[in-house]
Amino acid sequence: MKQTIFFLSDQTGITSELLGQTLLSQFDSIEFVTQTLPYIDNEKKALEVVELINRNAQENGIRPVLFSTLVQPEIKAILHHSQALMLDVFEHFIAPLEQEFKIHSSHRVGKKRTTEDKKAYDYRIKAVNYALNTDDGLSIKQYAKADIILLGVSRSGKTPTALYLAMQFGIMAANYPITEEDLENYELPTWALQFKDKLFGLEIDAKRLQEIRTDRRPNSRYSSQQQCEFEVRQIKKLYTKEAIPTIKTTIRSVEEIATKIIAKTNLKR
Amino acid sequence: MKQTIFFLSDQTGITSELLGQTLLSQFDSIEFVTQTLPYIDNEKKALEVVELINRNAQENGIRPVLFSTLVQPEIKAILHHSQALMLDVFEHFIAPLEQEFKIHSSHRVGKKRTTEDKKAYDYRIKAVNYALNTDDGLSIKQYAKADIILLGVSRSGKTPTALYLAMQFGIMAANYPITEEDLENYELPTWALQFKDKLFGLEIDAKRLQEIRTDRRPNSRYSSQQQCEFEVRQIKKLYTKEAIPTIKTTIRSVEEIATKIIAKTNLKR
Repeated sequence: MKQTIFFLSDQTGITSELLGQTLLSQFDSIEFVTQTLPYIDNEKKALEVVELINRNAQENGIRPVLFSTLVQPEIKAILHHSQALMLDVFEHFIAPLEQEFKIHSSHRVGKKRTTEDKKAYDYRIKAVNYALNTDDGLSIKQYAKADIILLGVSRSGKTPTALYLAMQFGIMAANYPITEEDLENYELPTWALQFKDKLFGLEIDAKRLQEIRTDRRPNSRYSSQQQCEFEVRQIKKLYTKEAIPTIKTTIRSVEEIATKIIAKTNLKR
Repeated sequence: MKQTIFFLSDQTGITSELLGQTLLSQFDSIEFVTQTLPYIDNEKKALEVVELINRNAQENGIRPVLFSTLVQPEIKAILHHSQALMLDVFEHFIAPLEQEFKIHSSHRVGKKRTTEDKKAYDYRIKAVNYALNTDDGLSIKQYAKADIILLGVSRSGKTPTALYLAMQFGIMAANYPITEEDLENYELPTWALQFKDKLFGLEIDAKRLQEIRTDRRPNSRYSSQQQCEFEVRQIKKLYTKEAIPTIKTTIRSVEEIATKIIAKTNLKR
């Protein structure tokens, strides 16, 4: 039998989802079915959710678990009538914070937009555009503006990592594919010499690289075991020779790669 | 005086950060200085963090607040000796879950990688590549594979939204710029007729659009008040005429735009 989990929010649901998944990952012998219910911001929607939860409880025969970041007391009151186990993030942490700060919280849904928020938003969009404009070795002349320049062989995860750094943290991340020619001579491309402190190398296992490349271009030299092993071996030597900091992308998610890079450099989140 | 906040994690820190920021947004009269400390996964790092926290408490004269998603008891024990108010997400929610599921949690840092995780990861990367390959009207011949096709005038937020849908939710999102010619005749481009159920329109205020375009190309026809007002007005009429669902991007973050689109369509997160 599968355990049903609901992630509930009056906003995007991302916090509730992430928190819930973090906690559920501690129970890997249980099979979970999850559903996110965002923007539950009025009583009508809340009542519909209660109905959905109770139907699920009945059909499934197992009490569902509910992670909630709901803020409004009247909406929460309705949800407390559902048959689920309700884990209320807001309720538990807001009281100690009120006590600590010696003021009442606003109980308002959503953040008040400030000029700071708009600036941060504009900056993230700018960073995403920068990552796109400098993807895969494009526009080297814009490298002076980069916070970081990711290096790696084709399909080692450069583009998603650069985009995530930009989208999540507003970091200006360019990425550049190291070519076979560079690899044969263990030489950095000439542009790289003036930006050495911005370089960061991605590493990947040859086997995993072969898998990814085969999916893209099967039975090619590009996806052959020999070629993948050669490129992986050579780029490692190049990183060592040039003392470029590196990270292994093989078994990591984009989130982990990006945050590890930030931790290993002096970049600001 | 500013209140210092630490977001602490033995992993990426993203959950701790998001949860903390959600809660802090309820106290908008206080000025916060936040710092994220990810990958605190051994005792040495934990001791360094305690030192950092205590130094901050002393210099600042205000007790810092600590949001923690730490899992390992021995690491947490060290942190409990700091001078901060520690809000321990793990501690509070893991007990009711253990009771509900009638098993002990693993107390292991990080998720066990499963084949499912790898598949989900591959799917997200595939979606990111799809969004890149179909950005700004590229590769219309790949639209059959799209889960959604975002429409909008230039600089209305199509690209970041498509990338976020792909990165966060593995949704195959293409995007297409509606041109002036389309706008003059209130006509959808011909390719759109066979994909009408995938279309989703982005709207933006003329004033905000002008701001964004001015940043990019000041004193041009493209960024003029008249042109921005014309495009915004005409595209609204086009959406109405063709009964295309829409969302306003003006005052929203990428996260909100993306999750609202998911909520308004039948896309799966």
